Amino acid sequence: MFRPQIKVIDCTIRDGGLMNNSNFTFETVRAIYQAVCASNVDIVEIGYRNSKEMFSPAKYGLWRFCDDEVLKKLTDGIETTTKLAVMQDAHKAIAEDLSPKSESVVDMVRVATYVKDIDKAIKLANNATDKGYEATINIMAISHALDRELDEALQQVEEETKVVACYLVDSFGALYSEDVDYLVHKFQRYLKTKEIGVHFHNQQQLGYANTIEAIIKNANYLDGTLYGLGRAAGNCPLELLIGFLKNPKFDLRPLLAIIEKEILPMQKEIQWGYTIPYMIAGLLNCHPEAAMEQMNAESGSAKKLDFVKFYEKMAGADA
Amino acid sequence: MFRPQIKVIDCTIRDGGLMNNSNFTFETVRAIYQAVCASNVDIVEIGYRNSKEMFSPAKYGLWRFCDDEVLKKLTDGIETTTKLAVMQDAHKAIAEDLSPKSESVVDMVRVATYVKDIDKAIKLANNATDKGYEATINIMAISHALDRELDEALQQVEEETKVVACYLVDSFGALYSEDVDYLVHKFQRYLKTKEIGVHFHNQQQLGYANTIEAIIKNANYLDGTLYGLGRAAGNCPLELLIGFLKNPKFDLRPLLAIIEKEILPMQKEIQWGYTIPYMIAGLLNCHPEAAMEQMNAESGSAKKLDFVKFYEKMAGADA
Repeated sequence: MFRPQIKVIDCTIRDGGLMNNSNFTFETVRAIYQAVCASNVDIVEIGYRNSKEMFSPAKYGLWRFCDDEVLKKLTDGIETTTKLAVMQDAHKAIAEDLSPKSESVVDMVRVATYVKDIDKAIKLANNATDKGYEATINIMAISHALDRELDEALQQVEEETKVVACYLVDSFGALYSEDVDYLVHKFQRYLKTKEIGVHFHNQQQLGYANTIEAIIKNANYLDGTLYGLGRAAGNCPLELLIGFLKNPKFDLRPLLAIIEKEILPMQKEIQWGYTIPYMIAGLLNCHPEAAMEQMNAESGSAKKLDFVKFYEKMAGADA
Repeated sequence: MFRPQIKVIDCTIRDGGLMNNSNFTFETVRAIYQAVCASNVDIVEIGYRNSKEMFSPAKYGLWRFCDDEVLKKLTDGIETTTKLAVMQDAHKAIAEDLSPKSESVVDMVRVATYVKDIDKAIKLANNATDKGYEATINIMAISHALDRELDEALQQVEEETKVVACYLVDSFGALYSEDVDYLVHKFQRYLKTKEIGVHFHNQQQLGYANTIEAIIKNANYLDGTLYGLGRAAGNCPLELLIGFLKNPKFDLRPLLAIIEKEILPMQKEIQWGYTIPYMIAGLLNCHPEAAMEQMNAESGSAKKLDFVKFYEKMAGADA
């Protein structure tokens, strides 16, 4: 039996864009958008609406900015009930970049934030709801959040915003199922009028399993990406999540087809998925940046450490 | 805090041998054996002790038979507390191939069986304990077992054997955490004098997560393989499991080193790990054989189906 309150969000292009500076071609993104819509996934997050003052449009692709005219062209002629979302980073986006909802095909703005930037995030989320959008606040790096600070932030989200959901984001792929239980319960204690969302990374191959755990604990906003494409080891694979959920409206087949056609060929250019450097970062609850540098370091260079040296370096840095 | 009753079993060569007819070189297996011993993993299962009448030694490598003289040479000069195990398939092994413990370096015989062959398995397990070995019975394809037949088999294992542990083996990678809970509790109800063991496959990226779930439910015999090397999508990665367990006797570093040196290079020859065909087989609770054929079918051949056609074929075959 399925739970109708559950909303599935595909964020393939948005999170995958962290691996290639959001440099996907328009045709690829339109094909993926069309497939996700055809599968009846509830929401598709197509990229960031971040500031061109903080990201150079010469270096970053269209999907770091998601200009309204680009999104209009992207969605043109595709009939769908799937909502369109963009993400704003609390510390890298500005309110003025969001036009009123009446001038945009965007339905939802998700604001990503560290606990310390919660006031910036609330300002951006309120800007979005004031302009007519649905909004969420997604608290990143949750495995580094101090309880006292997180408690206060959640209280603020409950009292000061009209977001539909507040997310716990396991940016470092460090959470175990016990941690998921603990955090979902904490979020529920504070967020009496919001849904709980979850976004997991796969550094320890737990992205999908932790999503199931969160479903059992009544989280209802669930992020996934096609074949797990996303930062470092990637995310909860959308195809596994759709296979698990029993809502008959979902159709797995368009997702399988687009993985074959568009996602697998990207493996030549983008290295995501489980590897030992990412596993070490997740195990040690570290930002994946150092592991990504290891993955990209040239064989034989001084920067390229063997696995044991990398582990010892990372473990030592944590002490 | 760690649970001292927990035993970790590396079965890299045994389960990986299902992907290459156990054709690993002696040097590779010795290096892996040495690394697993150095990490203080409790038990290492180095292969099968199956019948040369049922498997041709011309086709299958040393590790399908694990002759005592081969194992003596393998372990020669390596001081360790790690126990050595071999597996016997209930329907492909014979009692006479096991010499008395006094003539062998083997410590443990694990008997793999389908529920329907439980009487054969009990005969082989009792043969092993009578000859001085520790023994386990590992019930394969557990996601296809009928409750009534499984109940009877577990009752028999409890009453008719002296095995130290009885395993639930998720050969099809089909179980979710709820199923793990259900099955571990069932095993516990019948097996009052045995430990519960678990062996998971990774078709749905749940091998490690399900192992954690089983630990929480008090299963104490835990299988893993280096970098997940094993049939189809492979197994619970040993390095993740050792990273999770808090017993200070474990050392992760020899495992990381041997993965780099011996396991990763095998990816050129052996295709294991998460793929869409394996995911489809796991989702539909099917034997991975058809997915393995898909993985091995040549591009452009009539046998090579696209993902959607393969899914429709598998789903239809299940109806």
